[in-house]
Amino acid sequence: MKKKNMVIAQSGGPSMVINASLAGAVLAAREPAASKRIGRILGARHGIDGIFGRNYVDLRKVSESRFLKIADTPASALGSVRRKPNAEDCRRIFEEFRRLDVGWFFYIGGNDSADAARIVAEEAEKDGYPLVCYHIPKTIDNDLRTCDHTPGFGSAARFVACAFKGDDLDNRALGGVKIDIVMGRDAGFLTAASALARENDGDGPHLIYLPERPFSLDGFVKDVQAVMKRQGRCVVAVSEGIRDAKGELFAKKFAGGEKDAHGNLQLSGTGALGDFLAAHLKAHSDIRRVRADTFGYLQRSFPGIASPSDRAEAFAAGAAAVKNALAGKIAKGTIAIVRRPVKRYSVAYEARPIADAAKFTRSVPDVFIARNGHDVTPAFLAYARPLVGLLPHSELL
Amino acid sequence: MKKKNMVIAQSGGPSMVINASLAGAVLAAREPAASKRIGRILGARHGIDGIFGRNYVDLRKVSESRFLKIADTPASALGSVRRKPNAEDCRRIFEEFRRLDVGWFFYIGGNDSADAARIVAEEAEKDGYPLVCYHIPKTIDNDLRTCDHTPGFGSAARFVACAFKGDDLDNRALGGVKIDIVMGRDAGFLTAASALARENDGDGPHLIYLPERPFSLDGFVKDVQAVMKRQGRCVVAVSEGIRDAKGELFAKKFAGGEKDAHGNLQLSGTGALGDFLAAHLKAHSDIRRVRADTFGYLQRSFPGIASPSDRAEAFAAGAAAVKNALAGKIAKGTIAIVRRPVKRYSVAYEARPIADAAKFTRSVPDVFIARNGHDVTPAFLAYARPLVGLLPHSELL
Repeated sequence: MKKKNMVIAQSGGPSMVINASLAGAVLAAREPAASKRIGRILGARHGIDGIFGRNYVDLRKVSESRFLKIADTPASALGSVRRKPNAEDCRRIFEEFRRLDVGWFFYIGGNDSADAARIVAEEAEKDGYPLVCYHIPKTIDNDLRTCDHTPGFGSAARFVACAFKGDDLDNRALGGVKIDIVMGRDAGFLTAASALARENDGDGPHLIYLPERPFSLDGFVKDVQAVMKRQGRCVVAVSEGIRDAKGELFAKKFAGGEKDAHGNLQLSGTGALGDFLAAHLKAHSDIRRVRADTFGYLQRSFPGIASPSDRAEAFAAGAAAVKNALAGKIAKGTIAIVRRPVKRYSVAYEARPIADAAKFTRSVPDVFIARNGHDVTPAFLAYARPLVGLLPHSELL
Repeated sequence: MKKKNMVIAQSGGPSMVINASLAGAVLAAREPAASKRIGRILGARHGIDGIFGRNYVDLRKVSESRFLKIADTPASALGSVRRKPNAEDCRRIFEEFRRLDVGWFFYIGGNDSADAARIVAEEAEKDGYPLVCYHIPKTIDNDLRTCDHTPGFGSAARFVACAFKGDDLDNRALGGVKIDIVMGRDAGFLTAASALARENDGDGPHLIYLPERPFSLDGFVKDVQAVMKRQGRCVVAVSEGIRDAKGELFAKKFAGGEKDAHGNLQLSGTGALGDFLAAHLKAHSDIRRVRADTFGYLQRSFPGIASPSDRAEAFAAGAAAVKNALAGKIAKGTIAIVRRPVKRYSVAYEARPIADAAKFTRSVPDVFIARNGHDVTPAFLAYARPLVGLLPHSELL
């Protein structure tokens, strides 16, 4: 088989470990056996925009020790983009790939990025352009249908759990109600991870609201008042994606209506939802001290606290994509992360058709949501604990 | 000298290391020599409210190993309060102290807490109640006039520097403008610490706005546009305490007007200032991607990332208060942290009259603020680096 060149890029929201996937894929492609079939390794800057703009980094020239440091650096080292390619875009991509003699294409990202890679793969087939195309999973939202959990989630969940641990201690000290808004447009996994913060009796979060259950302002006020009566204080985890009974996003009331290329409403980067809930609670109760924080982009970018298993899996998923691409069984693929049904936590990396990961999202399953609709179940905690790792201990007086 | 009992309490906003000061003071008071003069050691819950409510923890019964764990736990293990005692309150305190035969009183907190301790100390003198009273410094704002820097600042500054490191990488990946609001009502030290995040060429924050310089919306828009032209992206650090040319708080436009017992306007626990600045920038420029985050309470409570030197100094300041109280040279004291004028960073702990720390605050000195008014100087970086410790490295492609 003739040697072909490789392009790899990153897309969508950054994470703490997406660079570990980049390192895993590139170092796997540089293995001696792989190098017999992979020639140049080009990193396109800012996803497919880097292909249009011929903006590449020669990744054969980056030393392995630098790649290990890049793997530990949050956010997308190649830069990112939110762009959905159309048929015309794809033709421009193949023109550029022909010029560069590219036969291997790897795209690291979430479901929208998987969809972008799927479109490229399908258009390549239509155009008769010979391309092996792999999506490498990444999303802090944990909502890819192909993965037991996604690279990026464990580290973001670790941030959220640590943040709630600290914030709950803060609330213990000064009392009142604290509302924290957590990322996750459609899936509540990251908000659910706040429950991992609990360690001692009475620890918060005391209420957890996910997008998977309708949110009502009246119910919220009643729930908080009940906790205040029981605990004398209340810490609340709220997903930025909470919806009313009609399925409409609460955040829609405040967002400027900004949408990305995939049609998603911009939710993060504003404190409006938390401020609204705090004001509503103050207006409809006699609780005096109510505070709201929105964790924002720190959830996906905070350095130095990545989950060890998440980092290792992100690296392995990148390497698995290259190995499966070379194996050739699936030419347009994605890497599924499958949890082995054994007692001690371990996962397998399997190739699946790329369309399986594209576009559609996964929600928090019913078995993970408590009956009362505002908490998680022990099954969720058992699911999430190995992904997040050991957390700092809180010693109370 | 007759053995007297001791009361210790925590007051004001929690920090990541205020429990280290509690541990340092209590373990020093439990030393054999100290125990000849200090009998019971009672922790009052929620500051002076614990004295009114006779709500104590017997701190002789807590093992040393538990105290070391408490020292690593963020927020106030005894609970906190924001309360300014009046003469009547003090009389109630002395009544309770008389009942308990208390001769030693330690109060850990910031300038408002120092003022509360000063009032107690002065009223005790007036009433002829024999009390040795020490304030133990704590504030993430770093604004005590008696300290080169305050316990709590280094760890909060470490959180802020790490947060900006990650957020700047995120902004590198996706572009546009990112505004981050940092705590600090009167002093900009914590906002200034964002500059420690810079490591590589072009790293943000690119603009740093402190309460020590008047903030104008027009100047802000122009500054951001200039950075966008030069860098193609812009990360902005803004203190929650920024003021207009008349000295009026910008946050006043959004805050509900809630004030604490010391007359301070509530600034934290809302995203309104960041949202306002983002909306203003969008409306007055052609920049499309503008996001704002407010770091909020995580800055003082995030577990597991305390600065090592900050933790050690918080512990030592607590111990120094007990030692100086026993030495008896100053009966109503506070612990000053003095940086030794030597090349290798080290500090000394000195007793000073309690009034020196009370009420009045310290601002970021001119020598730490860049001429352009929206950056810090190398002198600030040299001042702050040893307080924060080594930060995670960012490797770029």
